[in-house]
Amino acid sequence: MTSRPRPSVPRDKQDDYTPEQAQTRRDFVREQIGTSLAHVASYSLDPSTLPGNIENFVGVAQVPIGLAGPLRVNGEHAQGDYYVPMATTEGTLVASYNRGMRLLSEAGGVRATVVDDRMQRAPVFVLDNAVDARDLAGWIDAHEDEIRDAAEATTSVGRLVEIERYAVGPMLYTRFDYTTGDAAGQNMVGKATFAACEWIQRNHPDHPRYVLSGAIDTDKKHSQVNMLRTRGRRVIAEATLPAALLEEQMGVTPQQLFRARQYSQTGSFMAGSASNGAHAANGLAALFIATGQDVANVAESHASMVYSQVTDTGDYYWSVTLPALIVATVGGGTGLATQRECLAMLGCAGPGRVRAFAEICAAVVLAGEVSLSSAVLAGDWVTSHERLGRNREIQ
Amino acid sequence: MTSRPRPSVPRDKQDDYTPEQAQTRRDFVREQIGTSLAHVASYSLDPSTLPGNIENFVGVAQVPIGLAGPLRVNGEHAQGDYYVPMATTEGTLVASYNRGMRLLSEAGGVRATVVDDRMQRAPVFVLDNAVDARDLAGWIDAHEDEIRDAAEATTSVGRLVEIERYAVGPMLYTRFDYTTGDAAGQNMVGKATFAACEWIQRNHPDHPRYVLSGAIDTDKKHSQVNMLRTRGRRVIAEATLPAALLEEQMGVTPQQLFRARQYSQTGSFMAGSASNGAHAANGLAALFIATGQDVANVAESHASMVYSQVTDTGDYYWSVTLPALIVATVGGGTGLATQRECLAMLGCAGPGRVRAFAEICAAVVLAGEVSLSSAVLAGDWVTSHERLGRNREIQ
Amino acid sequence: MTSRPRPSVPRDKQDDYTPEQAQTRRDFVREQIGTSLAHVASYSLDPSTLPGNIENFVGVAQVPIGLAGPLRVNGEHAQGDYYVPMATTEGTLVASYNRGMRLLSEAGGVRATVVDDRMQRAPVFVLDNAVDARDLAGWIDAHEDEIRDAAEATTSVGRLVEIERYAVGPMLYTRFDYTTGDAAGQNMVGKATFAACEWIQRNHPDHPRYVLSGAIDTDKKHSQVNMLRTRGRRVIAEATLPAALLEEQMGVTPQQLFRARQYSQTGSFMAGSASNGAHAANGLAALFIATGQDVANVAESHASMVYSQVTDTGDYYWSVTLPALIVATVGGGTGLATQRECLAMLGCAGPGRVRAFAEICAAVVLAGEVSLSSAVLAGDWVTSHERLGRNREIQ
Amino acid sequence: MTSRPRPSVPRDKQDDYTPEQAQTRRDFVREQIGTSLAHVASYSLDPSTLPGNIENFVGVAQVPIGLAGPLRVNGEHAQGDYYVPMATTEGTLVASYNRGMRLLSEAGGVRATVVDDRMQRAPVFVLDNAVDARDLAGWIDAHEDEIRDAAEATTSVGRLVEIERYAVGPMLYTRFDYTTGDAAGQNMVGKATFAACEWIQRNHPDHPRYVLSGAIDTDKKHSQVNMLRTRGRRVIAEATLPAALLEEQMGVTPQQLFRARQYSQTGSFMAGSASNGAHAANGLAALFIATGQDVANVAESHASMVYSQVTDTGDYYWSVTLPALIVATVGGGTGLATQRECLAMLGCAGPGRVRAFAEICAAVVLAGEVSLSSAVLAGDWVTSHERLGRNREIQ
Repeated sequence: MTSRPRPSVPRDKQDDYTPEQAQTRRDFVREQIGTSLAHVASYSLDPSTLPGNIENFVGVAQVPIGLAGPLRVNGEHAQGDYYVPMATTEGTLVASYNRGMRLLSEAGGVRATVVDDRMQRAPVFVLDNAVDARDLAGWIDAHEDEIRDAAEATTSVGRLVEIERYAVGPMLYTRFDYTTGDAAGQNMVGKATFAACEWIQRNHPDHPRYVLSGAIDTDKKHSQVNMLRTRGRRVIAEATLPAALLEEQMGVTPQQLFRARQYSQTGSFMAGSASNGAHAANGLAALFIATGQDVANVAESHASMVYSQVTDTGDYYWSVTLPALIVATVGGGTGLATQRECLAMLGCAGPGRVRAFAEICAAVVLAGEVSLSSAVLAGDWVTSHERLGRNREIQ
Repeated sequence: MTSRPRPSVPRDKQDDYTPEQAQTRRDFVREQIGTSLAHVASYSLDPSTLPGNIENFVGVAQVPIGLAGPLRVNGEHAQGDYYVPMATTEGTLVASYNRGMRLLSEAGGVRATVVDDRMQRAPVFVLDNAVDARDLAGWIDAHEDEIRDAAEATTSVGRLVEIERYAVGPMLYTRFDYTTGDAAGQNMVGKATFAACEWIQRNHPDHPRYVLSGAIDTDKKHSQVNMLRTRGRRVIAEATLPAALLEEQMGVTPQQLFRARQYSQTGSFMAGSASNGAHAANGLAALFIATGQDVANVAESHASMVYSQVTDTGDYYWSVTLPALIVATVGGGTGLATQRECLAMLGCAGPGRVRAFAEICAAVVLAGEVSLSSAVLAGDWVTSHERLGRNREIQ
Repeated sequence: MTSRPRPSVPRDKQDDYTPEQAQTRRDFVREQIGTSLAHVASYSLDPSTLPGNIENFVGVAQVPIGLAGPLRVNGEHAQGDYYVPMATTEGTLVASYNRGMRLLSEAGGVRATVVDDRMQRAPVFVLDNAVDARDLAGWIDAHEDEIRDAAEATTSVGRLVEIERYAVGPMLYTRFDYTTGDAAGQNMVGKATFAACEWIQRNHPDHPRYVLSGAIDTDKKHSQVNMLRTRGRRVIAEATLPAALLEEQMGVTPQQLFRARQYSQTGSFMAGSASNGAHAANGLAALFIATGQDVANVAESHASMVYSQVTDTGDYYWSVTLPALIVATVGGGTGLATQRECLAMLGCAGPGRVRAFAEICAAVVLAGEVSLSSAVLAGDWVTSHERLGRNREIQ
Repeated sequence: MTSRPRPSVPRDKQDDYTPEQAQTRRDFVREQIGTSLAHVASYSLDPSTLPGNIENFVGVAQVPIGLAGPLRVNGEHAQGDYYVPMATTEGTLVASYNRGMRLLSEAGGVRATVVDDRMQRAPVFVLDNAVDARDLAGWIDAHEDEIRDAAEATTSVGRLVEIERYAVGPMLYTRFDYTTGDAAGQNMVGKATFAACEWIQRNHPDHPRYVLSGAIDTDKKHSQVNMLRTRGRRVIAEATLPAALLEEQMGVTPQQLFRARQYSQTGSFMAGSASNGAHAANGLAALFIATGQDVANVAESHASMVYSQVTDTGDYYWSVTLPALIVATVGGGTGLATQRECLAMLGCAGPGRVRAFAEICAAVVLAGEVSLSSAVLAGDWVTSHERLGRNREIQ
């Protein structure tokens, strides 16, 4: 273990976002630890576009993008056949989603809709006792308009739609819920909620203490409260898959899929899983990297609830609900060079497109569910004695 | 909505991993939807290195990398002052982690250790009834050696260390746990477990039906079973922060931090959160993209348990436990151009380095915890009447 | 295994609630299986009071009642020193609660308050697709008054206060929340919600299908949704315990308690527990049996969140929040012979007393937390080398 | 609020378990608060049998017992047609279970089996750092025999079967798992584990500090770790219900039940529920009170996983798994007057009967599931337009 700490990363306080500064830092890395960053240095983006996206810029990660699709989406906002850019280093991922997309498209496409929309910051107020905490909730009700004014004064986009409350001991946990336009909105709602809290602290007779997050916004963390109350967009994708198509393309029947669903539903329940589906995180991570989303949001966004049934006609209805899909078409990394191209490929670059993009995300997730679930099962059944005709009484 | 489906993405069955094929597909995109992929086309990696990492390659996502550190790590495997490449588009992320790293380094560094190591595939066996399912567990015990042999015959690296069992109804849910060397190992254990299941099915007198995943491996999904039983590496990072340093650099005291911990612990518990800490996902996502990890694993890897105490000397002990950190230094995207450079920067490229890398990951997460938790609190207390001397009896 | 089924239990369709009928059934038991029910036959209640409480009455379980207290409660509704009847067969339970009550009373008593009040029935509506389900939520908003009228027409007591909605796939899960006066109210809200659903089905143009419970009322089941959104009464009990008193009576210091709290909070979080406290179920089960509550509600009512801090004066603030306490002072078993006496002993028999009773329940739970947590710790520390002076740097 | 505290409950240190002492305390209640305990005073049990069951005895709660059954059980230990004593004050409960029992018996009875058996005490060891904590786990492995000897020296019945470990920060959370014969065993394993911990503390070179419960035994609390790892007995009851019988007796078809199962499975998953079934707590609470079980264990025991399928013959397979059924046929309240009669009625009084009793418990729970689930559905479908022939494509 070295005894003298190594020097700080060099930084130019005047203008740090230049190719030269990036080079300076890469040189620094070579000097300090002997590693050449030749490929990291190979990029086409303009470093001057990066303030607000990165600090101590040295270059880029080149993450391969594969093209899946076309995927037919019949959403309320996204309508058409989409080619989907997926940035990943995991072999077969693109091919697997592609397979699902083909099936879904041939089945007529994916219906998709955004059913709720709310981003939170969740301050906790700490009072002297439980009665005071409860009374604060009443006071907040009585001053809802002023609180909203204070919050919304900080933003031209965000709208405060609800202040949830959860009393514990001498504390009032709250969740301030906002719509945030086409942005993901975490910073927007942080700033607005800070203003709201300051207003409350100033104006409430007890000037209650608060911490801006009492942890129930569960920012960058999966949670049950997200499953229930939504974070970001709550999006649902659904399709009905003809039995013949399933058998032909996937080698499984609706009955086999449905039978296996019971195993995975029970297993997910016992395991306390964030999803009773297969692998939403795979498709979302690939889409998020490609399109400049905040990739850490995979932690929350991968929560999912699959619901399916065999229809009266013997076909297979399949839906996936994403209760906490956090996406944007403006802000964050969405305006960067490759990211913007990928959003554009989906017709989702810029304002007014976030719901369409959310619908596409959910449709992609459904494609992944269809493909992987069928593959796991077909693999099993191929090898299974069951398939060769042995008859079981149950399961 | 278009009535005729769009054409499939062009693909060369002979050799699809060439710059020309990537260009063909980009041209296809421009023809079909008019989007130019000029920046996506700008890459230095060699497409011929990409089989096994991507299909339908069109180019790359350029994700900006910032340099944080140095971070002193006193691990069992990672020892030294590290400069950490973080690929993100979220402004302040690198700066914030950097701040935490500086504090931790000045406090003497982060102790880190890998305390468990196991990757799962979790087949469910479906029997005729509960007694048969229970008896299968006994049969598996009696044939453990043969089953291990069958599994390990498929891999030169993976070692089967345990077969967990969870009985529900007529089903025996299992988790086959393996060590997987320096790989993340999901595919390795999938193949091995398939072989084991086939052996069981062939040799057990009832030839029991199974599905290769009963969902309790919770692959690409956070779960409570991961919190308890580990997935990937279970890694712990810890440090003791002198009170004076905390106050000077972060503007908070151990007492303030500890008081606020009670709010966030209670909130996390009520919310059913995947972490009682602040934002492990942020640091992990940035590290994962930079170093060629499977980014979808953020879904599982962000699970975390923070535990802290004020010490007898009035300083602040802070630990974070990552029960499901899924990382690799070989395989997947770890060998690609920029990714390998970033791993090399951490001294973690190639075989024999995965534990060191896991320790660094945990240390980085701890840096993020220290930085953000202090910032939230300092922001609050600055504005709080509390700080100006009002004396509260409680909380 | 017998091959001919045994006969049905005898039943008098005219008047089944007589001592003679009970005797007939006890005779039947003796004939069929040779068991004498001599003690079961020993009761003072009047069988004619039992319609609506039991079917096929044969006698009673005699559950011993012990007297704990006095417990000083400074609630909003319960104020005074209470002697608490606890029906249990678990030795030391009464003694342990008694010990906690004494400490709390000497510390000035327990503050207690009911902060929320809502009982649910949670129908799920199943539509043709997700858009229809979402639109149903809007339609329900637009017809809230009529729906409330339909629901409240079935009850003179219940008031519909909110209709929560949670969209998944083609389904709209709802929770109809009511206040239910002094009753627990499960039947009341079931009937009211059925009427509301029928109104919706009749009047909505699609006549949507529904099932009266989509399982998210989580009736008789612990759940995270209860932790967050309350079921029954949300009650908080709190007290500040002087350090000197704790040491003298319990042999522990606030610092020791607080240190151990960190272990149990972390453990509870990792285990996915229904409570981060010690044993709410013990006190509640004993109180519920004694006072004629529906004892199955222990499943929901034992959920609890303990929050504590060391105060600036070095004393120990301790609170427990019960988010799903389901209790009644009218209806169910509250009017039966011994049960009514026990409620009367607490000044809680009959209308207008349920909030006082809820406060007492929470205060009793707090007494149990104080007693057991201290005992576990004192036991440990007595035997621990730590106590004899060894100095640890951390934890 | 009274200003002078009320006096303590009178207690005779020589012999407190006499009718006279009970009378003294009832008189005391009348004097202090004016409440007569005439019915509480009416009991046939002998107070001298109560040491170890209650303190400050004043009399009994008379809880009405109804007789359900016969219920045919084809267990591994329980075999026959049982009349089931259920102590409750909730009207229709006995009738509803009775209905389910009849159906199950006519369908050939309930298969039931105990598939696991383990009771825990879960000490947490607190070390100086994570490495020491991890190493302690290794040390425990190396000294497993001595630790077992130390634990088992305290009990003639309990057998230590496993020491589970869960590392977090500087702590090693453990669960010491025992078989406990026919007892529930919480006290037995507490004493044994205390001895084991003391042995570890004495013999380990660091004399590690511990607390006897780190909360992951989740004693008297539902938890996810119980769902997975069992607490008490893991019991499964299952039956296949002929379609014709279901329709005739319950007015529902297998297809309707199965369709609705998808709603309740999804709802339970979203709600974070302790059960994806209907109401295990109802049957268990009634059985527990009647038979002298520790009723607080309903908190843990009500956890349940229902798994069902439509069989190839169109019938309905239905199973319920209770992962944490905590029951006894010796010790606790099982020897008291009415309680022993009720156990005797089930052929389950005394040693060697606990597995039979556990099987009966699970079979009773299944009867409740069958009855309530069918009732909810039949009620819905009766009123539903669906039933009258409207044809829906999906769900």
